[in-house]
Amino acid sequence: MSTAAKVMSKFRLAVVQLQVTRVKADNLSRARRLVKEAADEGSKVVLLPECFNSPYGTSFFPTYAERIPGESTQMLSEAAKESGVYLVGGSIPEEDGGKLYNSCVVFGPDGGMILKHRKIHLFDINIPGKICFQESETLSPGNSLSMFDTPYCKVGVGICYDMRFAELAQLYSRSGCQLLVYPGAFNMTTGPAHWELLQRARALDNQVFVATASPARDETASYVAWGHSTVVNPWGEVISKAGAEETIIYANIDLQHLADVRQQIPITSQRRSDLYSVASVQAGSG
Amino acid sequence: MSTAAKVMSKFRLAVVQLQVTRVKADNLSRARRLVKEAADEGSKVVLLPECFNSPYGTSFFPTYAERIPGESTQMLSEAAKESGVYLVGGSIPEEDGGKLYNSCVVFGPDGGMILKHRKIHLFDINIPGKICFQESETLSPGNSLSMFDTPYCKVGVGICYDMRFAELAQLYSRSGCQLLVYPGAFNMTTGPAHWELLQRARALDNQVFVATASPARDETASYVAWGHSTVVNPWGEVISKAGAEETIIYANIDLQHLADVRQQIPITSQRRSDLYSVASVQAGSG
Repeated sequence: MSTAAKVMSKFRLAVVQLQVTRVKADNLSRARRLVKEAADEGSKVVLLPECFNSPYGTSFFPTYAERIPGESTQMLSEAAKESGVYLVGGSIPEEDGGKLYNSCVVFGPDGGMILKHRKIHLFDINIPGKICFQESETLSPGNSLSMFDTPYCKVGVGICYDMRFAELAQLYSRSGCQLLVYPGAFNMTTGPAHWELLQRARALDNQVFVATASPARDETASYVAWGHSTVVNPWGEVISKAGAEETIIYANIDLQHLADVRQQIPITSQRRSDLYSVASVQAGSG
Repeated sequence: MSTAAKVMSKFRLAVVQLQVTRVKADNLSRARRLVKEAADEGSKVVLLPECFNSPYGTSFFPTYAERIPGESTQMLSEAAKESGVYLVGGSIPEEDGGKLYNSCVVFGPDGGMILKHRKIHLFDINIPGKICFQESETLSPGNSLSMFDTPYCKVGVGICYDMRFAELAQLYSRSGCQLLVYPGAFNMTTGPAHWELLQRARALDNQVFVATASPARDETASYVAWGHSTVVNPWGEVISKAGAEETIIYANIDLQHLADVRQQIPITSQRRSDLYSVASVQAGSG
């Protein structure tokens, strides 16, 4: 491996577990400051949480929604450029053509927008006595898979509930992604039950790195996020994990480790494509 | 739901974590006795471990291999009939046409053979300083998925390393299986790292019950099995788990719980079949 390739096979990832409030301007300014702080610590890729500019809730989405480009994505573009990082902008409620989406926008170190992922799987669950939430009351789903390139590796993007659908991660990893990022806001029921398990499953089954970014927990909010932003390696081990409060967590992503795991347990080459396949049905837009 | 349907929506599952020795006759007689014991405790489906009639190792497979039907499957047939259970006969080294397979044979309560699954994915791993094993040195792979019906639910069968391939479990669950069984012998490296995580992942991602059966641990063996036979529910929770020693573990399988989980977090109906698919490529034989 050349020296340049070796340098590019390692990078620092930061996850900003932002405390989201009802004051959008505060959310934006604090996010920008924490992205800068993460970059100052050597991070090359920075991840923000789902719904980082707005409280999470169907009643908030219409009020906080923006067109893209708009105020929040303008801040993201500037933050990415001033910090020189790939910035996965968590998600924001997006308004487009009279419809609302839960959208993740990614910016490159030059401030240019390189991807927009609209949450494909809307969060409609009902666990009696625990949690009932119906995103589809106000949101429309996206219709596309979303990957982007960096000098380090290819990255696949999902938002929160998207993580429950193994097919998305399978398609991303088969397409060459070595890192999957899921801004997400699990709650106090599904968080302790499934948040870490899903990440470790995606990482182990596909032998990729997985990073999640949750808002910090706010016990006074109508929807209480679990927190616990996490990074998992391709062996299925948690290598970095937040608590419930606002913080930045870091992980050194070593793509040689990924290559080693794939050589040791070579499931990526042992899959029986003569017996089964996971396939993308279409490259839709939405 | 009718009374009969209610009765059929619950059944007791037993997993026999057998201590496997070099003496085949002892393995067979003890397996038979423990199947009887499990049935006496009310079990309707009983699961034996991978390679239950032979030590696990490529040097043992040719010596212990049998044709099917043969001595070991004859015992299984009789055990199933005398105990009146569905008996998932772990696996045995099978000889057929000059080739060896790692095969799981399932018998019904009438003693009739209802399925043979040959391990699809051969266990070829190399973790330097930890574990190197190459099943493909002596074994040939099977070429078919394997499901069977019971009065309680449909069951999908995989053997050990098959569990690492999420596609198999996805196809089984999409085909209506509500219980997946994996006789398996993970080792002292992959056992603590991945054994439980893989089971919980399969269970949660597909909202099915998952049961694994390991041989008991034998520290003097050339291949030391992890043990820890486990049953996981569709919420991803471990509901029964063995230690390292020979034992029978039990789990009450409640298919209403499965239906409840699927209603609460309806991923089975929310999958985006317009965007991706997991498909069986062929119905091969082998």
